[in-house]
Amino acid sequence: MDPTAPPQTTTTLDAGVLLLTLNRPDKLNAYTAQMGREITAAFQRADADDAVRVVVVTGAGRAFCAGADISDGAGSFGDTDKLFGDAGKDAAAPRQGGGFIEAIFHCRKPSIAAINGAAVGVGLTMTLPMDIRLGSSTSRYGCVFTRRGLVPEAGSGWFLPRIVGLPQALRWCYSGRVFDAAEAAHGGLIEEPLAPEALLPKAMEIAREIADHTAPVAVAVTRQMLWRLSAEPAPWGTLGVDAAINVHLGAGPDVREGVAAFLEKRAPQFPGKVSTDMPPQVPWWPQA
Amino acid sequence: MDPTAPPQTTTTLDAGVLLLTLNRPDKLNAYTAQMGREITAAFQRADADDAVRVVVVTGAGRAFCAGADISDGAGSFGDTDKLFGDAGKDAAAPRQGGGFIEAIFHCRKPSIAAINGAAVGVGLTMTLPMDIRLGSSTSRYGCVFTRRGLVPEAGSGWFLPRIVGLPQALRWCYSGRVFDAAEAAHGGLIEEPLAPEALLPKAMEIAREIADHTAPVAVAVTRQMLWRLSAEPAPWGTLGVDAAINVHLGAGPDVREGVAAFLEKRAPQFPGKVSTDMPPQVPWWPQA
Amino acid sequence: MDPTAPPQTTTTLDAGVLLLTLNRPDKLNAYTAQMGREITAAFQRADADDAVRVVVVTGAGRAFCAGADISDGAGSFGDTDKLFGDAGKDAAAPRQGGGFIEAIFHCRKPSIAAINGAAVGVGLTMTLPMDIRLGSSTSRYGCVFTRRGLVPEAGSGWFLPRIVGLPQALRWCYSGRVFDAAEAAHGGLIEEPLAPEALLPKAMEIAREIADHTAPVAVAVTRQMLWRLSAEPAPWGTLGVDAAINVHLGAGPDVREGVAAFLEKRAPQFPGKVSTDMPPQVPWWPQA
Repeated sequence: MDPTAPPQTTTTLDAGVLLLTLNRPDKLNAYTAQMGREITAAFQRADADDAVRVVVVTGAGRAFCAGADISDGAGSFGDTDKLFGDAGKDAAAPRQGGGFIEAIFHCRKPSIAAINGAAVGVGLTMTLPMDIRLGSSTSRYGCVFTRRGLVPEAGSGWFLPRIVGLPQALRWCYSGRVFDAAEAAHGGLIEEPLAPEALLPKAMEIAREIADHTAPVAVAVTRQMLWRLSAEPAPWGTLGVDAAINVHLGAGPDVREGVAAFLEKRAPQFPGKVSTDMPPQVPWWPQA
Repeated sequence: MDPTAPPQTTTTLDAGVLLLTLNRPDKLNAYTAQMGREITAAFQRADADDAVRVVVVTGAGRAFCAGADISDGAGSFGDTDKLFGDAGKDAAAPRQGGGFIEAIFHCRKPSIAAINGAAVGVGLTMTLPMDIRLGSSTSRYGCVFTRRGLVPEAGSGWFLPRIVGLPQALRWCYSGRVFDAAEAAHGGLIEEPLAPEALLPKAMEIAREIADHTAPVAVAVTRQMLWRLSAEPAPWGTLGVDAAINVHLGAGPDVREGVAAFLEKRAPQFPGKVSTDMPPQVPWWPQA
Repeated sequence: MDPTAPPQTTTTLDAGVLLLTLNRPDKLNAYTAQMGREITAAFQRADADDAVRVVVVTGAGRAFCAGADISDGAGSFGDTDKLFGDAGKDAAAPRQGGGFIEAIFHCRKPSIAAINGAAVGVGLTMTLPMDIRLGSSTSRYGCVFTRRGLVPEAGSGWFLPRIVGLPQALRWCYSGRVFDAAEAAHGGLIEEPLAPEALLPKAMEIAREIADHTAPVAVAVTRQMLWRLSAEPAPWGTLGVDAAINVHLGAGPDVREGVAAFLEKRAPQFPGKVSTDMPPQVPWWPQA
């Protein structure tokens, strides 16, 4: 990693919402290993910083992210460090580690992809571990891997079927075709397409609803519960975790405030912080 | 449990359909630990009684169940016995035991929630282990936990994504917003909203179709197969179980009657009983 | 197996597309153990033969497959060899073996069901391990098992919920009702119903898109990745496999050709063969 290289993303924090912008507009925000490290760092910061409640990710210019930077032509994918970063170097090792997919997955703050244009290849797969995907009417999508001789990467073989269902995931991964926002919405990849000028405001509206009305600790635990337990074969793991956590939370200040605010019909001011007040049951999953 | 307390539910059995009505209309059928025990008892009876083919659950008055009874204010959730019953007392122990979620899940008869009004918090989560959810046009829904400082309870972190998919489950659990029947149907939580006067008749029509046309033993096994095996990572468990069970059933009187009724174009009269005639392969899952 | 019995299916191979036609039109293509063995053989050939890129399955005459042949009446299901073939004989053994469901599941080529008429019972369940289901406006469907006294067979208790979601799978399996193409499409079982004369052309168009634009090895791995890993409880298995495989493929001739063809805006000519060039990481799953 070259510390003197100009950054390929920008971040701004405003009232609890961290806006991460992919910022290589002249390259259609094509993905590089450096960009991957910057995304990782932004989500790690969001995870650690109590001032961040929600992450919104968008692209500068007319694309969201047009895919991996293959400006070196057919040699691009042979240079695994350049494209895949740490994942490429150590591909056989257990990957609960350092990549941007893991950083997004482990993050205790919800994330919203505001897809303003082409989201192709890794430009699409990076949005899959995020929680909510909004797309402008001008956005376009492609699981183009099989047309390049590759398989769906970045865990998208797991994430995409969980989001759109297995039949739709197979359909898009087999064809490798680029498709438009209407097809993406019909297939469940994004919500209803938005006018381009309405995209970021809608993302911010959703972010504000979370930041203004919900308890940070409860949202952090909810994110991990749904992603980590909902694909288990049986409900027992979830039932054990949720009962114990709610008994713990039920005796604490956040629930006292949440119930009081509800009864008094006012906005809540939750005192609990993700950095220091997570229930003792968390993490219930094995740590790397 | 106070045996002299007035019951908070009613049940009626008519031609194979057990109608369970949440019956605290002046409290919008707010959930209490006593109500939980009565729901548990009703589903345990439905499981054991061959006269019950299908369970239909609805609410008296204008609500289905407006949530946990928090009339004690912010202290309500600290009194875990009052709200969570056995689950609260023994939250760390394996929960294949005594709660109403487990009773619904283990029940060998299908269940239909006929949601006639507000189904908020536990009023919503109690319907998730049921098989079919119908809602009136006046019904309303809310996964309000994060607004109270809590996480989704009663296993809903597992059940909700299995029913509506992970993205929709995350969306509703993050926002904590109360939403209407149209949004619930759009998101897959209920079928198309029904006129209030059409709700119970439609539930009864679905119940009758099951009761009049299908074999009780086959339906009982089907319920356990789909809920318990469909979330496994591979089809092998299901393939082993279904083949062996169908070989067993294929040599028995229910299949003889089912094929004969089909060929003779008449309604079947299946002799097999859930209480005594389950295939020897059931239960294939570990018993507590 | 009687080698002198007339075949109950036909196959034709044209430019990479193997068309398998169920061919007992006077019996509405009713399923027999012999038909099951012929389906198995066709998919095993498709798996082994590099000349096959995609399999399309349809029915001769007005039905796709009206179900198991029960022309022997109520005794049909007792003769398990006749109906279930090897699966019936050895139902308790681990089934990664010889049945047609396994042959379709293990096949490294995508498959498309072109459902031209009634697809009832096994006529429906045989399409579930295929990847894409198209139906004509005249097609009809039924998970009729519970009306015959049986449980959903051929692994459909696993496959159906993965395709249409658990609530819809329960709904259809409980009712046992035969339903039309519009309901099948609304529930996610098939794509939008097609005019009868448009059915096979659409299946061929989808097959051609795969055959003409994508790498055989990449598609073969993608099929196994999505079916075998997407139902795991966590993404780690997928992330480990996809990264290692893409590093391998990224250094090989298919990716060189895929990227070159993309940059030169021409159709690719991928040299890699499924029979000889699968990545060393495949199979990552246990072998029987």
